[in-house]
Amino acid sequence: MKAYVYVTLKKTVLDPQGKTIQGALRKLGYKGVDDVRQGKFFEIMLDGGLDRTAAEAEIARIAREVLTNPVIEEFRYSLEE
Amino acid sequence: MKAYVYVTLKKTVLDPQGKTIQGALRKLGYKGVDDVRQGKFFEIMLDGGLDRTAAEAEIARIAREVLTNPVIEEFRYSLEE
Repeated sequence: MKAYVYVTLKKTVLDPQGKTIQGALRKLGYKGVDDVRQGKFFEIMLDGGLDRTAAEAEIARIAREVLTNPVIEEFRYSLEE
Repeated sequence: MKAYVYVTLKKTVLDPQGKTIQGALRKLGYKGVDDVRQGKFFEIMLDGGLDRTAAEAEIARIAREVLTNPVIEEFRYSLEE
């Protein structure tokens, strides 16, 4: 099973990296970009031995405890077979 | 309109950062993780003036020309209203 975990800065946290990309895009002449925010994601291959419920619980735990800084970041995840 | 661009290392490119995360998860006692690969993603808010076709073309162009290093990375994107 494969899981995707997406980690972003919370909406209330300033994202200077995203702002820099936005500014660069404007200078390079790309039109219509109002805002850019950058995040990271993780593709996690899970052991076939886990059932879906166990896999979901394990991924949520890994995302919350290891991959995300809860002070400034939030996460979402999805599972696929 | 909002666009998401996901950039990952090509499958054939080694991902030492992912491997480090995988090793750390194993040492921390998380079970069932066979592989981890890290990527980045961009949330791009687009000007409401663009129609869907124009927005899609612009996002594909930004992803290909600016956000991705074509030598080692690949991208996918999605649009939502």
